[in-house]
Amino acid sequence: MKKLFAEFFGTFWLVFGGCGSAIFAAGIPNLGIGFAGVALAFGLTVLTMAYAVGSISGGHFNPAVSVGLAVGGRFPMKDLIPYIVSQCLGAMLAATALYMISLGHADFAIDNTKPGAFAANGYGALSPNGYALASAFLAEFILTAFFLIIILGATAPTSNGKFAGLAIGLGLTLIHLISIPITNTSVNPARSTSQAIMAGGEYVNQLWLFWTAPILGAIAGALIYTYLISKRETAQ
Amino acid sequence: MKKLFAEFFGTFWLVFGGCGSAIFAAGIPNLGIGFAGVALAFGLTVLTMAYAVGSISGGHFNPAVSVGLAVGGRFPMKDLIPYIVSQCLGAMLAATALYMISLGHADFAIDNTKPGAFAANGYGALSPNGYALASAFLAEFILTAFFLIIILGATAPTSNGKFAGLAIGLGLTLIHLISIPITNTSVNPARSTSQAIMAGGEYVNQLWLFWTAPILGAIAGALIYTYLISKRETAQ
Amino acid sequence: MKKLFAEFFGTFWLVFGGCGSAIFAAGIPNLGIGFAGVALAFGLTVLTMAYAVGSISGGHFNPAVSVGLAVGGRFPMKDLIPYIVSQCLGAMLAATALYMISLGHADFAIDNTKPGAFAANGYGALSPNGYALASAFLAEFILTAFFLIIILGATAPTSNGKFAGLAIGLGLTLIHLISIPITNTSVNPARSTSQAIMAGGEYVNQLWLFWTAPILGAIAGALIYTYLISKRETAQ
Amino acid sequence: MKKLFAEFFGTFWLVFGGCGSAIFAAGIPNLGIGFAGVALAFGLTVLTMAYAVGSISGGHFNPAVSVGLAVGGRFPMKDLIPYIVSQCLGAMLAATALYMISLGHADFAIDNTKPGAFAANGYGALSPNGYALASAFLAEFILTAFFLIIILGATAPTSNGKFAGLAIGLGLTLIHLISIPITNTSVNPARSTSQAIMAGGEYVNQLWLFWTAPILGAIAGALIYTYLISKRETAQ
Repeated sequence: MKKLFAEFFGTFWLVFGGCGSAIFAAGIPNLGIGFAGVALAFGLTVLTMAYAVGSISGGHFNPAVSVGLAVGGRFPMKDLIPYIVSQCLGAMLAATALYMISLGHADFAIDNTKPGAFAANGYGALSPNGYALASAFLAEFILTAFFLIIILGATAPTSNGKFAGLAIGLGLTLIHLISIPITNTSVNPARSTSQAIMAGGEYVNQLWLFWTAPILGAIAGALIYTYLISKRETAQ
Repeated sequence: MKKLFAEFFGTFWLVFGGCGSAIFAAGIPNLGIGFAGVALAFGLTVLTMAYAVGSISGGHFNPAVSVGLAVGGRFPMKDLIPYIVSQCLGAMLAATALYMISLGHADFAIDNTKPGAFAANGYGALSPNGYALASAFLAEFILTAFFLIIILGATAPTSNGKFAGLAIGLGLTLIHLISIPITNTSVNPARSTSQAIMAGGEYVNQLWLFWTAPILGAIAGALIYTYLISKRETAQ
Repeated sequence: MKKLFAEFFGTFWLVFGGCGSAIFAAGIPNLGIGFAGVALAFGLTVLTMAYAVGSISGGHFNPAVSVGLAVGGRFPMKDLIPYIVSQCLGAMLAATALYMISLGHADFAIDNTKPGAFAANGYGALSPNGYALASAFLAEFILTAFFLIIILGATAPTSNGKFAGLAIGLGLTLIHLISIPITNTSVNPARSTSQAIMAGGEYVNQLWLFWTAPILGAIAGALIYTYLISKRETAQ
Repeated sequence: MKKLFAEFFGTFWLVFGGCGSAIFAAGIPNLGIGFAGVALAFGLTVLTMAYAVGSISGGHFNPAVSVGLAVGGRFPMKDLIPYIVSQCLGAMLAATALYMISLGHADFAIDNTKPGAFAANGYGALSPNGYALASAFLAEFILTAFFLIIILGATAPTSNGKFAGLAIGLGLTLIHLISIPITNTSVNPARSTSQAIMAGGEYVNQLWLFWTAPILGAIAGALIYTYLISKRETAQ
């Protein structure tokens, strides 16, 4: 249960901090934090929670990461479902909190025909800078694959594991620096689900991509790391 | 006494650096550091002082943090009052220094009818982007709760404690990336008090929120960490 | 083979992340990440891969780094060619992936008569802010020399080696903060080659500089570190 | 001699990287790195060199730091003059290199009647945002005092010394986030001297402040740390 609470609150923080910075602070004229500030915020949610609760649950906060770690032999398959449920519940409570805070702003409204509504992920007409479905899929696939390579490598027994939280958190910042204009950056189905439900409309119809591409990418990354990169003694 | 001086100078640095970056550098046209730069500055004040004097006083620099650590069983209740007094005095000396430096600028004036005057915290008409009281309270409550979860988790005996200063400092950066537009970000009653006294007017009347919301949030965060997340051996 | 795959995927990530952030996210109006965001992205590609696969291949991801480490006595000369080939192949696959993703944007086109096309490096008419050949050469030479001083020093036996990935990655960020306006920043012949081939035209003709200046700079940095700075016991 | 070369090259890197980022990249329209990028660059010069050559020379790269460390009992008084000479020579060679690179830009010119010329420090008419002499002196004094508190605290025997390079480097970033608009940020007489000589005119007449304020601040910081903050066992 402690593990599931750690995943619940960790994923709450990822969505509250990452999507919250996008909703509240990215677009303020002149002073706003922009895409770079949002990228930093997402990364710091994972960095902070990795050092806070990583020793309890492993610090996944992301269904694709849990799947990839299971494929890489680092996480028991039987714990996958409870972890993913906890992550999605944490994400949805965070989205609710963001919605409640947003209601205190006079101009608040969610226009789900436009890109980036309530920080939701999208492609085609809902891509922040107009990238088509295939580009969105390829970007999410590659980025999640490398996210898993970073996670598996930085937490390997032969690695300098104390820096894993730093490397993984800043890895998520890097992923956002690259791809916010493409899909508003998911690599995390729980984060995508909570915001799509809030935004509604076409965002819900596009949600399939933000489950399949990150999870397939995570599996690919885990296989690449295990069979091509890691030393035999770390791949046991 | 060493502990109280460490808290005094640490909180001086938090206010001088965080609020100073906001006052002097945030809004310079084209080249200014914006909200993201201010967020980084606040976080770095805590990161630097955590590594500099954290081993002496614990590195709170914030009455809400001291209260939360006491509730979490990490700090003796009897030291609360002297710590909080030292923090508030350090913050007020820093605000005075910022005021003296500001006097050397020809256009300097504090207009306490506008948001963000002298980097003070506010809600409603004094919220940087116009968020109502309830939104401000909820945001400060949630953010301080998670700040305490980060602090308690990162400094737990089972954690990789050497990274605590990094995680906690960058956690404060993250908190500012999310919420400067909502309340100008407090999560710290000492920081709010020093700037409200300088700004005066309605800012002083709003100060109650920036004591109650962070302290209640800190208590909530300490309880969540202790009873729901931490392993039994760390909660002793 | 594990080492060569580590270099292949590490250099893929350097180009995909660094050049990708420049192509997709730097110039978005109002919200774009700008040169500072690109600088952070390049540094984080190396930081993340250093902690992920650095213990396997050493984490060069750059022909000039491999040459400098060989000159400094840290890397066997006989492994130079396979490392450089792996790095260039990884860079080229990354450039291909960036191209495929870019095709999903309606306005995508590479105009190789303008600076910064497909994040390629250039001087003179192809320098982002119009710097002449000699300035470009001198900047690339000095920056790569100091990059090697950082790498050799941070990984020296007498140093605090666990922080090497952090120092080296953020060193690459620093290098980009200085020099994107001069040459779009190379210090890495593999990164330059992959983008020049994609951009074509005059970019290919300028590629000689981005092999000679970084490699000569790397050799100079290795000699300065070995003979002038390092203690005898680290220079063995 | 190894120590003096380490200080020479370290201070070269501080000026080349910090002032170079300001000269080449800060003000590029839309994409420029701004004051926040320059602040990051200055901090990263010290962070990278601290991990690269800190174990050789101590990693001062700044006459005020050397004086403060001597006052705090961490550095022998007899080594002060050779260190300061090495630092100033390194800074001046870096300024020369920046000048040579700048010559390759068609519009290059140094107008020493305007603030920030060649990244030089100034007050009054030469303050980037128009701060008077007294404000400039007070800011430089306080900031250098806290820089020494950070340095002495982070490198104290009872501290977690491995993070010192991180805390000190990011501390210099923080100092720049606060004060570039006030004085263009010195806290380092060697950095000020090299740029004032290049800029010439009134900048040279103002150089006295950027020696006296940082050095007096460094002495004050060393005394505050030694007598008020540090535990007796660290103040020996």
